[in-house]
Amino acid sequence: MSILIKGVLLNDAVKDVYIEKNEIRHIGTDLQVQADQVIDGKRKALIPGFVNAHTHAAMTLFRGFGDDMALMPWLEQKIWPNEDKLTYEDMYWGTKLACLEMIKSGTTTFSDMYHQYEATADAVEEMGMRALVAGACFDGFNLKLAERCKRENEKLMAEVVGNYSDRIRYAAGPHAIYTVSGELLKWIHSFTAEHDAPVHLHLAETEGEVQDSVKKFGLTPVRYLNKLGVLSPRLIIAHGIYVDDDEIRMLADHDVKVVHNPASNMKLASGIRFKFCEMRKAGVTVALGTDGCSSSNNLDMVEAMKLASLLGKAWRKDPEAIPAGEIFKAATEAGASAIGLKAGRIAEGYLADLCLVDLNIPAFIPNHNFVSNLVYAANGSCIDTVICDGKILMQDKKVPGEEEIMERTAELAYKLVKES
Amino acid sequence: MSILIKGVLLNDAVKDVYIEKNEIRHIGTDLQVQADQVIDGKRKALIPGFVNAHTHAAMTLFRGFGDDMALMPWLEQKIWPNEDKLTYEDMYWGTKLACLEMIKSGTTTFSDMYHQYEATADAVEEMGMRALVAGACFDGFNLKLAERCKRENEKLMAEVVGNYSDRIRYAAGPHAIYTVSGELLKWIHSFTAEHDAPVHLHLAETEGEVQDSVKKFGLTPVRYLNKLGVLSPRLIIAHGIYVDDDEIRMLADHDVKVVHNPASNMKLASGIRFKFCEMRKAGVTVALGTDGCSSSNNLDMVEAMKLASLLGKAWRKDPEAIPAGEIFKAATEAGASAIGLKAGRIAEGYLADLCLVDLNIPAFIPNHNFVSNLVYAANGSCIDTVICDGKILMQDKKVPGEEEIMERTAELAYKLVKES
Ligand SMILES: [Zn+2]
Ligand SMILES: [Zn+2]
Repeated sequence: MSILIKGVLLNDAVKDVYIEKNEIRHIGTDLQVQADQVIDGKRKALIPGFVNAHTHAAMTLFRGFGDDMALMPWLEQKIWPNEDKLTYEDMYWGTKLACLEMIKSGTTTFSDMYHQYEATADAVEEMGMRALVAGACFDGFNLKLAERCKRENEKLMAEVVGNYSDRIRYAAGPHAIYTVSGELLKWIHSFTAEHDAPVHLHLAETEGEVQDSVKKFGLTPVRYLNKLGVLSPRLIIAHGIYVDDDEIRMLADHDVKVVHNPASNMKLASGIRFKFCEMRKAGVTVALGTDGCSSSNNLDMVEAMKLASLLGKAWRKDPEAIPAGEIFKAATEAGASAIGLKAGRIAEGYLADLCLVDLNIPAFIPNHNFVSNLVYAANGSCIDTVICDGKILMQDKKVPGEEEIMERTAELAYKLVKES
Repeated sequence: MSILIKGVLLNDAVKDVYIEKNEIRHIGTDLQVQADQVIDGKRKALIPGFVNAHTHAAMTLFRGFGDDMALMPWLEQKIWPNEDKLTYEDMYWGTKLACLEMIKSGTTTFSDMYHQYEATADAVEEMGMRALVAGACFDGFNLKLAERCKRENEKLMAEVVGNYSDRIRYAAGPHAIYTVSGELLKWIHSFTAEHDAPVHLHLAETEGEVQDSVKKFGLTPVRYLNKLGVLSPRLIIAHGIYVDDDEIRMLADHDVKVVHNPASNMKLASGIRFKFCEMRKAGVTVALGTDGCSSSNNLDMVEAMKLASLLGKAWRKDPEAIPAGEIFKAATEAGASAIGLKAGRIAEGYLADLCLVDLNIPAFIPNHNFVSNLVYAANGSCIDTVICDGKILMQDKKVPGEEEIMERTAELAYKLVKES
């Protein structure tokens, strides 16, 4: 299986790109090569597929369900009672809708944390994307539940993960330090070290979390993890808003990955002073995410780039902070590197996870600066074609089967909510 | 000329809407009426066209030209030298591109302030939108230039404005209090009072502006205008970030209209604490705008709604602040009322300025709450059909002539910038 993309805009030059199997093989001008499929790149630009480094895919089911509410009433009245009822079918179709939405807006890989591991993995497998799938675990500081979480993760590793293609990878998903005991966090750290697997954790998202951490553990969140000994290059923390300079140094020293979720942080009013510049300067890998659809409320990484850059400029009172090129890297290269993929760059030998951007829309007219237009003027609807793992997932803005996915998921979501 | 929209989602019910000439005539169920054109509303929702209450349309020419720069170097090196060279042709095509972009994202009316009045008005006339067009004036505290500004406004009123359809209305456009003398502001106030015309002014946009105002006039911006006696229901101020409680009361007492431009305020790092809730509580009409494409960098009012709501929640640390329904009103009803139009609502007797939203996209799946999905999940690409003044400007996401507009404007923009 091979694909030749002819005459596409790539970093301000017009190039041909040849893909063989799941890799970018050649980049050049007027490549003389036969390919199974040829894509005309005229009036299109080629970019790496986005990596949505923190989401809860199947929360598409709750999109717009309980907006404009404070966190606790929203969780207690709207989300938790319904999450308890989620079936395999709900999760499978909710994830399919999430994949559809992500493909349509140029995301090829996502890092997920939610329930019903197999439903998520099955949906991703069929949709052709890549995902780092973490089963959310909570022990609520209860020893019995901690044991159950351990057995679940062992089972996933032994029985489940091998059943999928290598587009789907396992991560542990301890929910947060206020729902998961230190003992379980340590066990997860050792277990995943044995299997060289990532750990996906919410951390330092709200001021309340920091206060509780100090009260309960005598330490701020990152210091607490440091003391537990669970900081590592395999740890991916979502949010990380409330970290001081010493904590940034701890994150850098242990090569911990951080995922910024600007839409969620703003909409839930969690905090706006995400220290993107300080973390980058300290050498921390900072990726970008959307969080789940019930807090963000979409999975559009193009919008996430704009929000992250604008928010970063705004709170710093510095219009030069977080330029377009830097946040574009966070959404592609850094995301891929955070989850250990040779992707997120268009270079020979990298994974063929790519998007063609439609330049024939007002957002790219004029095109004085492509990356600037992509970040500040466009939105996810500019994506025309998506290739993941060397296969075409979308062409001409259409994904095969999209009608069925939207219909089925809507039905299930209404049924789920009506019963509550 | 009449249009019947059949079976469209309108405020959670399925309705027929009948339009005659430029007005909404009947709203009902299964209307038995003949119409020249019938639009199938299936899987679509009907909303009022958006009112973009502050922009500089032809700045589309400078989209992405000099992003991530501090304000003064950007103006001095990038914008001002090029603005001096703008021809009628540049402005005409730049405005056409802006209109195209606005139509495609659901805006039917905008309030503009820029150069080359007739080029802007000609473009709007042809594109079928409504606009309040203000010629930007600056006297730089120079008496001679002040006289020239007066003569220009008199000429516009006497010779130009009558040549256009009533979709195009005149406003005076004093740029700001740091570029326009108090004497000229007072003359504009009287002149526009005579002709019952609006005045469109940048005000209280940056901390620097407030400091300069206090230094130069001994008063903060709104107090200064109050002392000049130019606060009135015809005054539309763009930005209005730096206003205290007393100033909000002055704005309310004089029924001054305020336009919030969240993307511009964030990207230029002007300020984030726009007092939406306080102004609304005091009874001030607060509309929404995008500002020009060189600071925002698009004209998407759906995105502007999300930014305004998220930013308002974020800096207040209150997830319940500025709910979706409120910001939707700011973008429609309040905008129309700010510029004196009987529009922005779907009711009998109102202007037929309407959009059909495509519900068959992931942003509206599931559709637990339409307004929430529109504000938080969608972007301008959800707009399928646009009607302005009872005429269809876009159907099936296509605007007649869009290819030519994009090509011509891109050429002119490259030529303009290359010569600099
Ligand atoms: Zn999350
Ligand atoms: Zn402006």
